[in-house]
Amino acid sequence: MKKIKKGIKLWSKAKKIIPGGTQLLSKRAEMFLPNQWPSYYKKAKGVEVWDLDGNKYIDMSLMGVGSCILGYADPDVSKAVKKVIEQGSISTLNSPEEVELAELLLKLHPWAGMARFARTGGEAMAIAVRIARAQTKKDRVAFCGYHGWSDWYLAANLADKSNLDGHLLPGLEPSGVPRVLKGTAIPFHYNKIEELEKIVRQHKDIGAIVMEPIRHQPPRDNFLKKIRKIAFEIGAVLIFDEITSGWRFNIGGVHLKYGVNPDIAVFGKAMSNGFPMAAIIGKKKVMQAAQTTFISSTYWTERIGSAAALATIDKMISHDVPGHLDKIGKLIGEGWQGLADIHQLKIKIEGLPPLINFSFNYGEKENQALSTLFTQEMLRRGFLASKSVYVSYSHKEKDVEKYLDNVDKVFRIIKKAIDKKNVYQLLKGPVAQTGFQRLT
Amino acid sequence: MKKIKKGIKLWSKAKKIIPGGTQLLSKRAEMFLPNQWPSYYKKAKGVEVWDLDGNKYIDMSLMGVGSCILGYADPDVSKAVKKVIEQGSISTLNSPEEVELAELLLKLHPWAGMARFARTGGEAMAIAVRIARAQTKKDRVAFCGYHGWSDWYLAANLADKSNLDGHLLPGLEPSGVPRVLKGTAIPFHYNKIEELEKIVRQHKDIGAIVMEPIRHQPPRDNFLKKIRKIAFEIGAVLIFDEITSGWRFNIGGVHLKYGVNPDIAVFGKAMSNGFPMAAIIGKKKVMQAAQTTFISSTYWTERIGSAAALATIDKMISHDVPGHLDKIGKLIGEGWQGLADIHQLKIKIEGLPPLINFSFNYGEKENQALSTLFTQEMLRRGFLASKSVYVSYSHKEKDVEKYLDNVDKVFRIIKKAIDKKNVYQLLKGPVAQTGFQRLT
Repeated sequence: MKKIKKGIKLWSKAKKIIPGGTQLLSKRAEMFLPNQWPSYYKKAKGVEVWDLDGNKYIDMSLMGVGSCILGYADPDVSKAVKKVIEQGSISTLNSPEEVELAELLLKLHPWAGMARFARTGGEAMAIAVRIARAQTKKDRVAFCGYHGWSDWYLAANLADKSNLDGHLLPGLEPSGVPRVLKGTAIPFHYNKIEELEKIVRQHKDIGAIVMEPIRHQPPRDNFLKKIRKIAFEIGAVLIFDEITSGWRFNIGGVHLKYGVNPDIAVFGKAMSNGFPMAAIIGKKKVMQAAQTTFISSTYWTERIGSAAALATIDKMISHDVPGHLDKIGKLIGEGWQGLADIHQLKIKIEGLPPLINFSFNYGEKENQALSTLFTQEMLRRGFLASKSVYVSYSHKEKDVEKYLDNVDKVFRIIKKAIDKKNVYQLLKGPVAQTGFQRLT
Repeated sequence: MKKIKKGIKLWSKAKKIIPGGTQLLSKRAEMFLPNQWPSYYKKAKGVEVWDLDGNKYIDMSLMGVGSCILGYADPDVSKAVKKVIEQGSISTLNSPEEVELAELLLKLHPWAGMARFARTGGEAMAIAVRIARAQTKKDRVAFCGYHGWSDWYLAANLADKSNLDGHLLPGLEPSGVPRVLKGTAIPFHYNKIEELEKIVRQHKDIGAIVMEPIRHQPPRDNFLKKIRKIAFEIGAVLIFDEITSGWRFNIGGVHLKYGVNPDIAVFGKAMSNGFPMAAIIGKKKVMQAAQTTFISSTYWTERIGSAAALATIDKMISHDVPGHLDKIGKLIGEGWQGLADIHQLKIKIEGLPPLINFSFNYGEKENQALSTLFTQEMLRRGFLASKSVYVSYSHKEKDVEKYLDNVDKVFRIIKKAIDKKNVYQLLKGPVAQTGFQRLT
């Protein structure tokens, strides 16, 4: 492997002219391997990524932060996209592909009657909340999980800076969110129905219940059904944020698997395999409220997003992509556990197979140092590796085998380091950050 | 010309499954020619658009609502985009193109020190306002012009439903915008400095002054300079929304032409010739506040947007696109006026050449009927035509000649209809809508 030079230099330059260095927290070098991460790519294909120095890696980490469910530069999706670029990706007239996509999504979700589209997950969630508030005429939101950067969501932290802890990204700052929004978004935790019950007892003006139907653990004790019942009882719009969960576990939203229909479901990421696209689908009566408010943006009408989504969904169905992700995810999880047992390493495996992750189990501070060492040593061996793997259709058994061969070697190093108490000496840079921190 | 059938049928279907039928108000058939508009396109190239029935039109109207400044499917931009698609348009690592684009924008705007990116204009404006509020710790906004669908902006109509009238789109409904935001956004009108002066006398907590530096008329009596001075005096962040004005009148933002630097400028639309992209640039001190809040989205990191913007800006510079738009826009404006004089039609021409528009001058209701008749008759003759023309680099003198030949014929018809008082009889469908209306 060549030295990683160009990407480290460019990242350092980027931080001087882009606040935070990149547009996504999860793509900061500091989240993986401070001062050592390649940061930039020249080319990505399947599960392979080439950095600016020409080093090739196998991506056993975030796969475009969950967006590339088929793998990078999927030939079928690229073909569909290049065709619409050739024929003009936007015009004064509309794209017929967006009607086709609306029909397809409604066919896959028979409970839904109408669809709207956006281009990023954050704005799609803001649209869903706008529609819910417009329909119920009640402004307060109860939520669970991570839902992006918008005012409606970060408002939760105006009340208590730790409100969003436990909802994927701890420490999110609500600076710049109008302070009058304090109290308009109230969090509850997954599988803790009593928390939501308390919220609805205390507040009679909950217009929307917003949640990720699944993330790290499956619903227990009819959690989703109970939520559905509460939403009906209080006349709130139930919004399932399927941006991360959708398409991975089954075709469509994971709510279909659990047999609980929301009033609105939101999709993004995997749906279009890396091309900006997001969808908001919902019951006709609820979605009609979009017509009583103003939700409009020029770039929501370009047709790459729709074309990419149609091609991606078609391929996910015809190739049983969720089945593949389950199989590969299980191999990875079992592999981690098996190797941890061999090396007598304490690890904790969480998540369902398509989005599986592990963490070390040696105390909070030590764990993060060990994870950093893991990423560092795997990188040297040609893998982009972190605690989480978003499995893609391009991850094949041979990739997992090769990956686990190297995890074996790295687990050995880590075990030795723990025993010798020299973990920090082995790190060639600072420990990776978790959550939200200011970059200098 | 073949009958327009497929598009009309598909539009009727779309309205049943997409609230409002499309994601952009300005692309509704009802805004152009209710029940007669082709609504959908199969192919668009240069200034030509083919509808679903195979009819070919020359676009002398919105050119992708101002996004396609070079023309549809520009070969140079398409080439750059197809290259990054081939090489993977997103990955776990970042795209070096976004750093390159940041550098280019900062070079073109020496007053700015940092850049952030988004993918749609609406979210870019919400980011700018978030940063301004975070930096000043003051939540109230004074604004002028049109700035999209976000809560911060529509909040203006919570106070008075007519607040947004006169800011491009009258009648925007704030339904679903949290009512606690009432009073957080206060409008002032372009070239009326006394209105802003009154606002800042009444409110000591204005954190941002947000405006389009130009739209229908040039600044009078040092309007922009006076705004700049007020912003300095009250410690507010001055945000110029250059989404519509940028790149059309000169390279970069129109503020460069007037020599007034904002604290933040926002670009979208034309910058990337129809591929979703938006940029927020600003003074380092102000932009750093982005690090004290959470602004993060997966699809803001894909690289089509950056690649398209780099190719578009390069071509705008090397081909002096603003110069071309000025020349062509003048030809159109002079053509309209000349033909109106010949046919003794009362019209009013507004706007600067790159975004020129005319309206009839016979009373509010009559004008809209006449405009609808204009669009109807031009469509029959193979033109997408409305009151506004967003000029593109692909509009050549021969297109304008051909267009004006047909405007001549249509103005004759209109004059005759006015004289015979049979305008409504000539209309084969309802009169076009203006502004925001619910669709059934």
